[in-house]
Amino acid sequence: MTAIHQKAIIVDGLVISNFTRQVLEDMHAGGITAANCTCSIWEGFEPTMRNVATWLRSFEDNADIIMQVHDTADILKAKAAGKVGIVLGWQNTSGYGDNLDNVRLFAKLGVRVAQLTYNTANLVGSGCYESVDRGLTDFGRDLIGAMNDAGVLVDLSHVAKDTARDAIAASKKPVAYTHCAPAGLKKHQRNKSDAELRLIADKGGFVGVTMFPAFLARGKGASVEDYIEAVEYTINLIGEEQVGLGTDLTQEQPPSFFTWINRDKGEGRKLVDFGEALELEGFRRSSEFPNITAAMERRGWKADRIERVLGQNWLRLLREVWGA
Amino acid sequence: MTAIHQKAIIVDGLVISNFTRQVLEDMHAGGITAANCTCSIWEGFEPTMRNVATWLRSFEDNADIIMQVHDTADILKAKAAGKVGIVLGWQNTSGYGDNLDNVRLFAKLGVRVAQLTYNTANLVGSGCYESVDRGLTDFGRDLIGAMNDAGVLVDLSHVAKDTARDAIAASKKPVAYTHCAPAGLKKHQRNKSDAELRLIADKGGFVGVTMFPAFLARGKGASVEDYIEAVEYTINLIGEEQVGLGTDLTQEQPPSFFTWINRDKGEGRKLVDFGEALELEGFRRSSEFPNITAAMERRGWKADRIERVLGQNWLRLLREVWGA
Repeated sequence: MTAIHQKAIIVDGLVISNFTRQVLEDMHAGGITAANCTCSIWEGFEPTMRNVATWLRSFEDNADIIMQVHDTADILKAKAAGKVGIVLGWQNTSGYGDNLDNVRLFAKLGVRVAQLTYNTANLVGSGCYESVDRGLTDFGRDLIGAMNDAGVLVDLSHVAKDTARDAIAASKKPVAYTHCAPAGLKKHQRNKSDAELRLIADKGGFVGVTMFPAFLARGKGASVEDYIEAVEYTINLIGEEQVGLGTDLTQEQPPSFFTWINRDKGEGRKLVDFGEALELEGFRRSSEFPNITAAMERRGWKADRIERVLGQNWLRLLREVWGA
Repeated sequence: MTAIHQKAIIVDGLVISNFTRQVLEDMHAGGITAANCTCSIWEGFEPTMRNVATWLRSFEDNADIIMQVHDTADILKAKAAGKVGIVLGWQNTSGYGDNLDNVRLFAKLGVRVAQLTYNTANLVGSGCYESVDRGLTDFGRDLIGAMNDAGVLVDLSHVAKDTARDAIAASKKPVAYTHCAPAGLKKHQRNKSDAELRLIADKGGFVGVTMFPAFLARGKGASVEDYIEAVEYTINLIGEEQVGLGTDLTQEQPPSFFTWINRDKGEGRKLVDFGEALELEGFRRSSEFPNITAAMERRGWKADRIERVLGQNWLRLLREVWGA
C-alpha cells in the first residue's frame, strides 16, 4: 500500500457484494473510506426495509471495522477512525413504492443514493436494456424532486439514454453515473457515449468509472491497467474534477444472485449475457484496492489527480447533494 | 398560565389525538415540551411505516412549532426553542411484525416508546381485555430484550396483569405505565391495583397517570380536580419521583377512529364500552394543559413536586431507558 493510498480518502461509488464479515474485512483491508453499498435492486418497500434492518444489525455487529454514513462529516470520521463508512444505496427505486414520502423515510435510515431504474422500465422511466426508451415519467420527475429535497443522490448508471437525459434536466442537484464505462473505448448498451458523459458533466454531474471487463476495450482478461485507461479517457473528456471510481464488485455473491439480478424484476425475462469474467485481473476483491492506486501511480498521475479521483471528487459531490 | 407552568419541562406521556395543524397548535399553546404521540395501534409493519413517513413530513411542514425527539437532549432543545418535542410511540407491537431487527429500524426513525399489547392478545402477550391472561410469550421476552438494547421504553398500560408482571421481570431497564389510573380509587379492568403500581415502582419503573373519566372515581363529570386526586393517590403510594402524566387525549379523532380502536385488530369483536365522557371538565384540549398545573397549585403542591410530576420525572426515566 503506497503512501498516497494510505493518506487518501477512498470512496467506492458502487459495491454490490454479499456483505459478509469477510467481505467487510476485505473492504477494511483495502483501505476504503466509504462505499455506496447496494441494498435494494428488485425489492419492493417491505423487503427493502428488511435489508436496511439487516444492515443496522451489521453496523452493531461489525462496529470495529465499519460505521454508517449519513453525511460527509461521517466519511471524515470514518477516515479518522480507520473504519469503512457505509452509505446505503439502491440500484432501483422499487423500494419507494408509489409514495414520495418514502424517500424521506429511507433517507433518514441512511439510503442516500438511489438509481432511478435497474435495466428495465419501472414507475420512473426506462432502463438501459428496455426495448423502447420512453423517457422520464411525471412520477419520476416528482421522485427526483423528493430526492433532491431529502438529499438523495440520483444515480443513472443503468438508466436508458433518454430517461437519463430527462432526469439530468429535471434534477435541481447534480446527478451521477456511479458506475459506468465510456462507450468511446467499447460499444456496449450499458456504456455511455462521449455526448452522454459531457451532458452530465456540463450540468455539474459526476461519472464514477466502473471496471466490469465486458465494458472495457479488452473484455475478458482486462487488468487494472485497462481500468485506469478507461478512467483517464473519461478525465480527458470531462476533466479530472468530476470523475471517481465505482467498482461494481460482487464479492461472495452466489450464482442464484446473478440469475436473480439478470431477470426482469428477479423472476422475469433474461436481460443480458454477462460473459465469464466478472472482475479485473489484479482486482477481484476489495482488499486489492491498493492495486488501483498503484496503477495510477505507474501511469504517472500526479498525487493531486490520484487523490481527487480516489475520493475528493466524490466527497465534494456528496456534500453538494446531501447538503452536509 | 402560571410562572411554574411557563418554566417547567412538561411531558405528556401519551397523546393519541388526530395530529392536525390545529391539534399541534393546541399542544404548542398548552406549553407542552414533549409528548409521546401514538402512531400505531393495530397496524402492521407497512402501514406503520406509512404513519412514520407521514410524521416525517409533518416535522418539516410544522417545523415552526414542533420538532422530532430522539433523546432527552432533544427535549431540552425543544424547551429552549419553544417547540413541542414529538416522541413517536406505539400502543401495540404489531408494527414490529415477527422480526426483532425491526425494533432497531423503528428506533432509528424515532419510535422510542412501545406498548407491548393493545387490549387483546398478540405475539407478545395478553391485553387487559383478553378473556384469559396467558402471560408473556418467549418472543415477547426476546422483544423486550431488543427494546432494551435499542433504547425503546416498554409501555404496559393496556397490558394484562400477568403479562405485565412477566414483562417487568424480564426487562433490564425500567418500564412504564404511560397512561393508567389507580384501581384504589375506581375498580376498572384498565386500572392498576395498589400492588401492581408498587410492583412496577419497586423495579425502578414509572406510572403516568391518565384522566379518562371512566377510570376516575367520579366518572362522567370528573374535573381536573378529580384527576389531580388520582395523581396524588399514586404519589402517596409510590412516592413523587416515579409519577408523571399521560393524558390520553383524543382530540379531533372522528367516530370511525373510536370504532376502529375498540374492535380487536380494528375490525373484530367489540372490546369495551367507552361511555360518553372522553375528557375531563376543564381539560378537553392540549391547549388547556395550564389548567392541570393550576389545579396542582390550588391543591397546595410545592413547586418542586409540580415540576417533577409535570416533566422532570419523565425526563429522568427516558434518559435512563434511551441512554441519552
